[in-house]
Amino acid sequence: SCSDVLVCPLRPVERFRDLRPDELADLFSTAQRVANLVEKHFNATSITIAIQDGPEAGQTVKHVHVHVLPRKAGDFKHNDSIYDELQNHDQEDKDIPSKWRSEEEMAAEASDLRKQL
Amino acid sequence: SCSDVLVCPLRPVERFRDLRPDELADLFSTAQRVANLVEKHFNATSITIAIQDGPEAGQTVKHVHVHVLPRKAGDFKHNDSIYDELQNHDQEDKDIPSKWRSEEEMAAEASDLRKQL
Repeated sequence: SCSDVLVCPLRPVERFRDLRPDELADLFSTAQRVANLVEKHFNATSITIAIQDGPEAGQTVKHVHVHVLPRKAGDFKHNDSIYDELQNHDQEDKDIPSKWRSEEEMAAEASDLRKQL
Repeated sequence: SCSDVLVCPLRPVERFRDLRPDELADLFSTAQRVANLVEKHFNATSITIAIQDGPEAGQTVKHVHVHVLPRKAGDFKHNDSIYDELQNHDQEDKDIPSKWRSEEEMAAEASDLRKQL
């Protein structure tokens, strides 16, 4: 299962280059805290950090965001299939609602993670 | 062709979590400058930014680094094949020397980019 956590700057800007120095520092210190948290929470051993900066990089929402993905041995057959997964999650037509977890389940997890931050 | 540029912090640390706040700020403001530069230099329209933080995320060198990859429409048949490419570049047995550019060509490009920073 994909436990992607997104970290966004408070001020919505489209591209990575639009972030001010203070926003860059905030964004990545938050990403660092989130990475530590989800690595422990999901018993992972590594983290994939990715920004799809612009449509040709797979960005579908015009608001810079950092993907923080806990990883563990054997989580994907082909190590970088994680990025296909990322891509599919951003495209409604490829996303299969029956595979989603319930709203309640996701809300409970979000609340649990929030308490630990 | 893959025009991956790597940005490393001066102090070599293994994991993303080991970076101090000032190092985080430096690393990403440098990545931002490099991203702007290579997007223009390679006539790209987007940028993929990625950190393989730990071996299960594909990290093969124990020194945190940020991949900055200029992207353009149609550069990879499957948008996220870029990550397979990244992975292969890190694994000697999958890397095909005949496909490499010459040392001279790479040194000239590096020198050209350096002047623009």
